[in-house]
Amino acid sequence: MPSDSEISDQGFHLSRHLPILGWGRVYTRLQLTGDLLAAVIVTIMLIPQSLAYAMIAGLPPQMGLYASVLPLIAYAIFGTSRTLAVGPVAVLSLMTAVAAGSIAAQGSSGYIEAAMLLAVLSGGILLIMGLLRLGFLANFLSHPVISGFITATGILIAAGQVKHILGIDAGGHNLFEIIASLVAHLPKTNIPTLIIGSVSLAFLFWVKTGLKSSLVALGIGETPARIIARTGPVFAVAAGIGVVALWSLADKGVAIVGEIPQGLPTLSIPRFDQELWTSLLGSAALISVIGFVESISVAQTLATKRRQRIQPDQELIGLGASSLASGLSSGFPVTGGFARSAVNFDAGAETPAAGAFTAIGIALAALFLTPLLYFLPKAVLAATIIIAVLSLVDFKALRQTWRYSKNDFAAMLATILMTLGLGVEIGITTGVALSIFLHLYQSSKPHFAIVGRVPGTEHFRNVLRHDVITCDRVLTVRMDASLYFANARFLEDTIYDLISRYKGLQHLVLMCPTVSVIDASALESLEAINQRLEDAGIQFHLSEVKGPVMDRLKRTDFLEHLTGRVFLNQYQAIKALDPNPDQEPEHALSLIHI
Amino acid sequence: MPSDSEISDQGFHLSRHLPILGWGRVYTRLQLTGDLLAAVIVTIMLIPQSLAYAMIAGLPPQMGLYASVLPLIAYAIFGTSRTLAVGPVAVLSLMTAVAAGSIAAQGSSGYIEAAMLLAVLSGGILLIMGLLRLGFLANFLSHPVISGFITATGILIAAGQVKHILGIDAGGHNLFEIIASLVAHLPKTNIPTLIIGSVSLAFLFWVKTGLKSSLVALGIGETPARIIARTGPVFAVAAGIGVVALWSLADKGVAIVGEIPQGLPTLSIPRFDQELWTSLLGSAALISVIGFVESISVAQTLATKRRQRIQPDQELIGLGASSLASGLSSGFPVTGGFARSAVNFDAGAETPAAGAFTAIGIALAALFLTPLLYFLPKAVLAATIIIAVLSLVDFKALRQTWRYSKNDFAAMLATILMTLGLGVEIGITTGVALSIFLHLYQSSKPHFAIVGRVPGTEHFRNVLRHDVITCDRVLTVRMDASLYFANARFLEDTIYDLISRYKGLQHLVLMCPTVSVIDASALESLEAINQRLEDAGIQFHLSEVKGPVMDRLKRTDFLEHLTGRVFLNQYQAIKALDPNPDQEPEHALSLIHI
Repeated sequence: MPSDSEISDQGFHLSRHLPILGWGRVYTRLQLTGDLLAAVIVTIMLIPQSLAYAMIAGLPPQMGLYASVLPLIAYAIFGTSRTLAVGPVAVLSLMTAVAAGSIAAQGSSGYIEAAMLLAVLSGGILLIMGLLRLGFLANFLSHPVISGFITATGILIAAGQVKHILGIDAGGHNLFEIIASLVAHLPKTNIPTLIIGSVSLAFLFWVKTGLKSSLVALGIGETPARIIARTGPVFAVAAGIGVVALWSLADKGVAIVGEIPQGLPTLSIPRFDQELWTSLLGSAALISVIGFVESISVAQTLATKRRQRIQPDQELIGLGASSLASGLSSGFPVTGGFARSAVNFDAGAETPAAGAFTAIGIALAALFLTPLLYFLPKAVLAATIIIAVLSLVDFKALRQTWRYSKNDFAAMLATILMTLGLGVEIGITTGVALSIFLHLYQSSKPHFAIVGRVPGTEHFRNVLRHDVITCDRVLTVRMDASLYFANARFLEDTIYDLISRYKGLQHLVLMCPTVSVIDASALESLEAINQRLEDAGIQFHLSEVKGPVMDRLKRTDFLEHLTGRVFLNQYQAIKALDPNPDQEPEHALSLIHI
Repeated sequence: MPSDSEISDQGFHLSRHLPILGWGRVYTRLQLTGDLLAAVIVTIMLIPQSLAYAMIAGLPPQMGLYASVLPLIAYAIFGTSRTLAVGPVAVLSLMTAVAAGSIAAQGSSGYIEAAMLLAVLSGGILLIMGLLRLGFLANFLSHPVISGFITATGILIAAGQVKHILGIDAGGHNLFEIIASLVAHLPKTNIPTLIIGSVSLAFLFWVKTGLKSSLVALGIGETPARIIARTGPVFAVAAGIGVVALWSLADKGVAIVGEIPQGLPTLSIPRFDQELWTSLLGSAALISVIGFVESISVAQTLATKRRQRIQPDQELIGLGASSLASGLSSGFPVTGGFARSAVNFDAGAETPAAGAFTAIGIALAALFLTPLLYFLPKAVLAATIIIAVLSLVDFKALRQTWRYSKNDFAAMLATILMTLGLGVEIGITTGVALSIFLHLYQSSKPHFAIVGRVPGTEHFRNVLRHDVITCDRVLTVRMDASLYFANARFLEDTIYDLISRYKGLQHLVLMCPTVSVIDASALESLEAINQRLEDAGIQFHLSEVKGPVMDRLKRTDFLEHLTGRVFLNQYQAIKALDPNPDQEPEHALSLIHI
């Protein structure tokens, strides 16, 4: 079976790095119809979303639209998912706000420049990762860490939008600051804004939870019902605009989106400022990796449903080109979004061309539709955001993880608490470091067993779990892990401990059925064990060593120094070393209680 | 078998934390004789060593003696090795010089204070690690990284002593600076110093390489010959003192040790200065871990020779008490040294009391012997250092590691180059980070195989390596690693890739014989695989799942969602899923070449 790495060894193929050459060549009229329909629906859904995500990022609304034009075309050319819909997403928007906010005040031109530069840098990082095939770096984000991070980010984003529902000013970089600021400004709540916000929240909540089943009950098919429910925010937006315009609520203190410049995004190359670039690089790297992880899991979910395939390394290039295009066209970091990709899929998108058509739709909206959005109340956008991100919050996962693995739970909880308490960047960094540490710690003390033979068979099992036959002069042990630096010392300690307690010992056999790798540290430990057992008059044997591991050992002089032998299987070892192989199993018990 | 952790679960026992209560209770006259003899020999060896290591650390010579009194008594009380001889060692002395040098100029009182504080802090860190059983942290230093670090440190120390052989002033924090400084000052070489230094080097080299065999040839036993060869530096010291005193060479520019205050070390508690403590903490942590790793490997080597046992966590306490005692009594960081422990062992030390007797010997030397050392030329001390540390340099290991493992080689080479080029602290940190990264990277792409049945047996093997029977509708795969976050995505990618290529597939079986752990990320990946295979109309099965892994899976609802079954062994799986289990093996080949 050619693995990923084998495929990638086949050298550079243009069609590999330009997937459009594959599907574009055989594009059919039927596919065109599906793509066009999907594009119309995604466009309708994406207009309010892109405005809302620009608001999360603390950027002018048109930047949300700009981030939904060229990036989609770039992905259509370079991406490998047929149905992924890219654009601004909630988590990256918050991360952009945090990073740009560390450079300049929200609303300033420095802030906008920083947001665009973040897109360029993270696009560049993704491209480099794709070309150097560094996609595996994303694997170091464990699921519980990502899940905890997304949950905490969802809470932070929702908390950050509450001010728009109340019509007050508030700020803060972590949950406590945000809540404190909200409480402090609470007396200034604007009642018309609160009413619009609350009604929007209630309506959108119903759209999300009850509309689909109501539509199905009315005889509408499952898929169209799901699509209509997903485009719900558009109705809220339209109603909000109508209400504010009709009753001149903007004069009564209801914050509105206001004038959005009409026109297409302008292209620009960011000026090079070493200090600025350096200070944004870490944030851009985090945005890249988080965006990639989010997007690829969406893309993979959808691809598998149609037995299609995405290529992770090429996805890096697709998403990198997307973000780069966004940053060069007055946008901010983008990636594949779950909700809109699902709509794209459900609405029948067949190829990435659907994304390109969506881009045209958003471009038309930027050209002609923006005057209609003048009266759009920010409270409605905030309500769409809150309802959208609350589905990111998943405390059930916390309980499930607790039941399944305490290590994973610890990493998850730490990620949530650090993200809420100290911010997104510290949160995700802590989570990754802790999960790597806990993994190494766990693998440094693997399961270790003394084994004996199950009477009447050639099988060998843990003496603590089974009634097995052992022998006073031959001790067989098994460690259930590859041998590497973090557990090499543990193996030594454990064996030295054993031989200091079993005085009559003449042979020690290490069973290696689960040893896939022996690194240089472990090899030295085996050499030390061999040497020290020899000093103590004990022969050291191995059994059931895997082929590749054996091949490697043969490249060293370990096998020449080995005082004992390497047995193909443990039964042969015990037959050769134990003259009375069928002693009574009671022996096992006497060994255990030493 | 009670593992380390099980033993430690037995609660607090005084004799566990005070090993002296064990051996002290049954101390015999025979042991006393052995210990006393060993103490006399080690004392003779330790006097020049402790002066030399103080010189490496850039500290006054008496501090070397002070570091060899109370620390030895502390270790005798708390240590678990019967023959380990603690005191100043070369590598820690250099690390002390680097860390203290970052605080104050060599020779200043701030520098001396920093060195003492380093001993207190690293002693405290070791004690805490011991009490919290954090000894496993030392496992994250892989053998190649330690070996590379020791090699590079040996080179740095030797290079740093060349100035004493030449009788010039020179400095530098890395190899290039040291060499540049030596070359710049070369014209000021002091000829008498150079002669003393060169003769000492030649003599000590002969002592190290030829003396033992000459003595054996003269009919002296192997062990006494080895002991005499190890105490060789004492003769060089005596001769050096004689020559300088006799010909008044100090007046001709030969640098001498000069006046060493007579008397015992004074006890003092370091003043608390938060800034100073904070800036030394990182260095102290590195000194602790490096010292522990060096010492425990020596202790273990010697213990196993007599089938004794050392307890790593208690060793942390023993070494911690040692360093703490050193810092509180005007000494600097100490640990178990290889050469002197070997002498102690060879000379017949039976219990840690030998260390206490050595402490008395050094205390007597500090009281009465220091006037005799007045004329000791620094060039002789430098020669003893150079000869001693060059045995630390091991380039052969580099070649061996290259042959055995490219990853380990990369970590080792990086450690050597970074240590030589950028200093000890950056060197060791880089090495540890790189070796952890490479390990995670390697384990993120484990060996993965499609397997088929060996005809006529119940064994299953890799289709690429064996002629085996497979089936169009049932695909069996095996991943040779535990499933965790770093390889969970790889498993998903690989399986999705497979199902996009094998169109007629109805069953996919994942063999798990080497899976010892499935973490929460991998569990989610298995759930995703199950879900996506279901979407694609394929049943997902597991086989040969280990007991503990199965127990954990049962705590989740994964097994309820699983579309297929969990088979005890792969043969049962294939019997149940494949109606024609004895097809011809040619199938395998057709699969491979898709």
